[in-house]
Amino acid sequence: MNVGIVGSTGYGGVELHRLLSNHPAVVECILYSSSLKGDSYAGQYPHLTGLTNGRIREIQIDEMKELDAVFLAVPAGISKEMTPKLLDGKAKVIDLSGDLRLQDPKEYEDWYKGGAADPAVLKEAVYGLTECNQVAIKEADLIANPGCFPTASLLALAPLIQNKLIKPDSIIIDAKTGLSGAGRKPSLSGHFSETQENLRIYKVHEHQHTPEIEQQLKRWDADTGPITFSTHLIPMTRGIMATVYCDLQKEKTTGELHEEYRRFYSGSPFVRIRPIGQYPGTKEVFGTNFCDIAIKADSRTGRVTIVSVIDNLIKGAAGQAVQNMNLLFGLEETAGLHYYPIYP
Amino acid sequence: MNVGIVGSTGYGGVELHRLLSNHPAVVECILYSSSLKGDSYAGQYPHLTGLTNGRIREIQIDEMKELDAVFLAVPAGISKEMTPKLLDGKAKVIDLSGDLRLQDPKEYEDWYKGGAADPAVLKEAVYGLTECNQVAIKEADLIANPGCFPTASLLALAPLIQNKLIKPDSIIIDAKTGLSGAGRKPSLSGHFSETQENLRIYKVHEHQHTPEIEQQLKRWDADTGPITFSTHLIPMTRGIMATVYCDLQKEKTTGELHEEYRRFYSGSPFVRIRPIGQYPGTKEVFGTNFCDIAIKADSRTGRVTIVSVIDNLIKGAAGQAVQNMNLLFGLEETAGLHYYPIYP
Amino acid sequence: MNVGIVGSTGYGGVELHRLLSNHPAVVECILYSSSLKGDSYAGQYPHLTGLTNGRIREIQIDEMKELDAVFLAVPAGISKEMTPKLLDGKAKVIDLSGDLRLQDPKEYEDWYKGGAADPAVLKEAVYGLTECNQVAIKEADLIANPGCFPTASLLALAPLIQNKLIKPDSIIIDAKTGLSGAGRKPSLSGHFSETQENLRIYKVHEHQHTPEIEQQLKRWDADTGPITFSTHLIPMTRGIMATVYCDLQKEKTTGELHEEYRRFYSGSPFVRIRPIGQYPGTKEVFGTNFCDIAIKADSRTGRVTIVSVIDNLIKGAAGQAVQNMNLLFGLEETAGLHYYPIYP
Amino acid sequence: MNVGIVGSTGYGGVELHRLLSNHPAVVECILYSSSLKGDSYAGQYPHLTGLTNGRIREIQIDEMKELDAVFLAVPAGISKEMTPKLLDGKAKVIDLSGDLRLQDPKEYEDWYKGGAADPAVLKEAVYGLTECNQVAIKEADLIANPGCFPTASLLALAPLIQNKLIKPDSIIIDAKTGLSGAGRKPSLSGHFSETQENLRIYKVHEHQHTPEIEQQLKRWDADTGPITFSTHLIPMTRGIMATVYCDLQKEKTTGELHEEYRRFYSGSPFVRIRPIGQYPGTKEVFGTNFCDIAIKADSRTGRVTIVSVIDNLIKGAAGQAVQNMNLLFGLEETAGLHYYPIYP
Repeated sequence: MNVGIVGSTGYGGVELHRLLSNHPAVVECILYSSSLKGDSYAGQYPHLTGLTNGRIREIQIDEMKELDAVFLAVPAGISKEMTPKLLDGKAKVIDLSGDLRLQDPKEYEDWYKGGAADPAVLKEAVYGLTECNQVAIKEADLIANPGCFPTASLLALAPLIQNKLIKPDSIIIDAKTGLSGAGRKPSLSGHFSETQENLRIYKVHEHQHTPEIEQQLKRWDADTGPITFSTHLIPMTRGIMATVYCDLQKEKTTGELHEEYRRFYSGSPFVRIRPIGQYPGTKEVFGTNFCDIAIKADSRTGRVTIVSVIDNLIKGAAGQAVQNMNLLFGLEETAGLHYYPIYP
Repeated sequence: MNVGIVGSTGYGGVELHRLLSNHPAVVECILYSSSLKGDSYAGQYPHLTGLTNGRIREIQIDEMKELDAVFLAVPAGISKEMTPKLLDGKAKVIDLSGDLRLQDPKEYEDWYKGGAADPAVLKEAVYGLTECNQVAIKEADLIANPGCFPTASLLALAPLIQNKLIKPDSIIIDAKTGLSGAGRKPSLSGHFSETQENLRIYKVHEHQHTPEIEQQLKRWDADTGPITFSTHLIPMTRGIMATVYCDLQKEKTTGELHEEYRRFYSGSPFVRIRPIGQYPGTKEVFGTNFCDIAIKADSRTGRVTIVSVIDNLIKGAAGQAVQNMNLLFGLEETAGLHYYPIYP
Repeated sequence: MNVGIVGSTGYGGVELHRLLSNHPAVVECILYSSSLKGDSYAGQYPHLTGLTNGRIREIQIDEMKELDAVFLAVPAGISKEMTPKLLDGKAKVIDLSGDLRLQDPKEYEDWYKGGAADPAVLKEAVYGLTECNQVAIKEADLIANPGCFPTASLLALAPLIQNKLIKPDSIIIDAKTGLSGAGRKPSLSGHFSETQENLRIYKVHEHQHTPEIEQQLKRWDADTGPITFSTHLIPMTRGIMATVYCDLQKEKTTGELHEEYRRFYSGSPFVRIRPIGQYPGTKEVFGTNFCDIAIKADSRTGRVTIVSVIDNLIKGAAGQAVQNMNLLFGLEETAGLHYYPIYP
Repeated sequence: MNVGIVGSTGYGGVELHRLLSNHPAVVECILYSSSLKGDSYAGQYPHLTGLTNGRIREIQIDEMKELDAVFLAVPAGISKEMTPKLLDGKAKVIDLSGDLRLQDPKEYEDWYKGGAADPAVLKEAVYGLTECNQVAIKEADLIANPGCFPTASLLALAPLIQNKLIKPDSIIIDAKTGLSGAGRKPSLSGHFSETQENLRIYKVHEHQHTPEIEQQLKRWDADTGPITFSTHLIPMTRGIMATVYCDLQKEKTTGELHEEYRRFYSGSPFVRIRPIGQYPGTKEVFGTNFCDIAIKADSRTGRVTIVSVIDNLIKGAAGQAVQNMNLLFGLEETAGLHYYPIYP
């Protein structure tokens, strides 16, 4: 397979490059960027010295259409323009941006503060939460790869919602992320001295991943009410944790819920349900496509707490995109994703 | 005033030493420890080279009773033994441990897994959440200084609960702390290589600060139900953030709630209510006794999110203890606590 | 005293503000900035909420001339323009930039890649390495406040060079700094995700602090040869360590050298010579004006290693500037600088 | 191949496990530990959940002798006892401890403060600095795998020393390491709150890696004098940087030296000589077996500065051990070591 990465100079792009360059089915991985065409990739990312002599190429739609797959690792606002031009080509498109995830244009406009993508394109876009949407993904030409927070949150909630175990208007998600989620562009909020030894909350009730989570929850249970969703910046580079709180419909023990989760994810190679009483840390999935989950019921309150962790750049972006590519092309779901966490 | 610190070699102890050594009303600050008697304090803490030539003394009850105030910065289980012996002396006692905070011995036994303090001692102990208990503190001989998480959580909740603005069984507190809260004793969970670039949750539904928060909430509103409380370890040294979620009784705007908070804390020099839309980071209170709070209502969900941050070793321990000492002795509440945050 | 800070929105500026706002001799501290005039200072630095209601003012030379002291916490290139206009006023000027430190204009042009200041102004400028230049500082109207690396390096070397104990062409300085030294302006090299879990070297043999160190060493011993100087970026916010290597002229024991250092700095309240065998960490001076030094001879090689640490924003910038202000105005050298390190 | 790891519960051990479990020539990887026999390995290291169901086994010499290779990832003092018992078996032994590196027992006793290994065993031990000792390694039965600091330092120095380009008594190595080098055992010096935002120097002139470096340098040039070697603790988990300073024998330009390095390492797949003017950061080799090197001459001083970085747990320990295993068994030198750095 020949694949292309648009937005190759961002953190999502460089992680895609790492995974695809080592993928058994990928022959060539072409790097595109709007801003740095002609530059050597290892010049932008010196850690790749000796590993690639690729150069960054100008975005050329015609060339990209002839590839097998194109990954769009671009900021919101770009792929809604680019995707329609690509769709009549040979290439399957995997969009890592938020542009094609929300089926309701009004939601996009409200939360992203910009015009939504063409409804015809949106209709083509299959939501790529791999564990929960395998059939549709295998048939798709266009994948809307989930956001990092929605991935962690939805995998935490799927067994409960699909089995109607919780009150559908009781969902609160307290999410925490490392800094790499904000990308490579320098900013005051990502400046080391402002960030180190600091813990911050941002976009309270206003994060654009909120409607993405709600949309998928409603597909699973139409009664799902609006969620409360907050996001925190943790002084670390990689990793997301979603701590999810809900009211149980009926009393359930931790053991019963744990068994439910194990069953639900028994065929999912990248979801690891932790033993009762053991909670995952983000470092335990560092560098991998795993989502690790723990669950605990509380008879005192009738609530349940679910904890899920991912590496935001992998299961939350590039890794899940490759996992989706694997399904799109009939490969093993785990192809090119057999990494152990780097620990410590 | 002559004061003593028991447990002076821990992080709470060394922070007390810093504050008390620079306190305008304190003449002498004597250091006690069960384990390192005779050692120079600067030998234990080389950052104090040239600032003190104090030596660590053996714990001597008779000597301590003659001081003006004794601070017990000891692990749970110690002060319940030591306090009764001190109480018939001259010294006022400020206990920073969890031993004297829970009035119901059963609660202590359930959550601390040990025998509770003598009920007579518990009866003497006044809960030292300074902003909310000034009258009783001024009259007290024995202060149960609040835990770090309860301080951040209760200050976040007080205006809502006291004014019955939220549903009393809807409280969820997602708390996050830096590593210094776990003390100076080396452990695997506090080992740098296990901690850096890691985000962990611990003691889910089981943290011993849970009943302490509930007890105080029930004093304010007897209808308060059990809370959901979880705690996370952040790869930083100092700082606590409590992100608190509740259902509003009636719809309120952020502006109305913000005004309520400003009014509630108008006489509290260490509580800073942030402007609407600005959220505090822990680094913005680093090295100070401040508790910074932001509040945001969500009309979509009918919920409210409150964020409060403190320096866990100061407002969450040593600083609040000194603030209580100031009230006990009729000093200015802010005496010895006029520090600017160290930033960045 | 009424004082002004030009460049108040940078990290040097905000640290000056902290120190001067709490200084016993300072009545008013006026904030100037070329870029953010009219803004509230606490808007720029929310950690100052409630501590100041100061606003940032436009730079006005005539107004500044009437102050008692003006601190220029500006990037290189600005103060060489501004200082001449200020010098005929009442205000004493303390320049924290590199513009006025090098007496030889050629050196400035070579290392700073720009035009040097007016020689007449340079002649007025007294080098403010406080411990080593007290007489001249007390008489000065204009202080060239030392750079952060030169402060740590020169205090490490002064006793050896002034006593001709080392070979004057054998000096190698391996310097390490936290990120705050690079200022508040966002950049890729200061971006958290590029910086965390990373150790980098920069400006090898090319750092503009090299001639500043050499100039002062040559004042002490005209035979001093060119030094080797390298600088490293450490993933932390504050702190500098200079590890200095030299060849001894004659064999000396660590004990003899240690005694020399203790004698040399016996009248210096901010230099702490550590006991033999104990080495300072940067965190042990965090938040203070201290410079902590250790020394060790090596009979195997005939060399000596000296280690010195400072808080780069305090002894390496704002703190030393205040220390110099104290001398300029006949105050206690330590006035307004009595801080304990924040530890841990 | 069937291989065993003794000391599998330490950081060196778990990194060996990661590399060997993914090595194309390794069939089984058996885990030994003196302390935790019977425990599941994923219980000790939850990041391995689902990746291994291995259990930790008691150390059994007879069983280990029948393996193809045994890795000793144990503290100093253990392998000198264990190796003699293993050597008459089938297994090739790769010792990652310091016990078998120093050929002169006197040196071991002086620097390690303990009794040296049996001289007969020492004679068998081939020093496993892979790039520089390929012929002997291929013939060996017993490898003394180099220390982390010696690896970074010697690879930085080899081209200069072997070509007699520097004055052999002028070598100063300023080394810096992340915390994982100190192992997994909790200690005050590795405690997060003592370490974060701290930069420390330790074992000045006394580090046990000093004679190891000197021994190898003397093999290359018998005139090499004693070196000055210092080590610093950086608040990060992984990574070593050696900044090496020497006097050039004759003036050389950076370009000439750079060319020398490129030639010297042209056949070394894991050494990357950086372009002139570009300096490696430790994060750029994170998770890999690379050693990245930059060099810069200084005509002002006649000195040269060399910078080399490695991942201390890989090229500085487990990775180099596997690289040596590859040579011992006639495999490709890079087998099982094709990893890209994880960045950011």
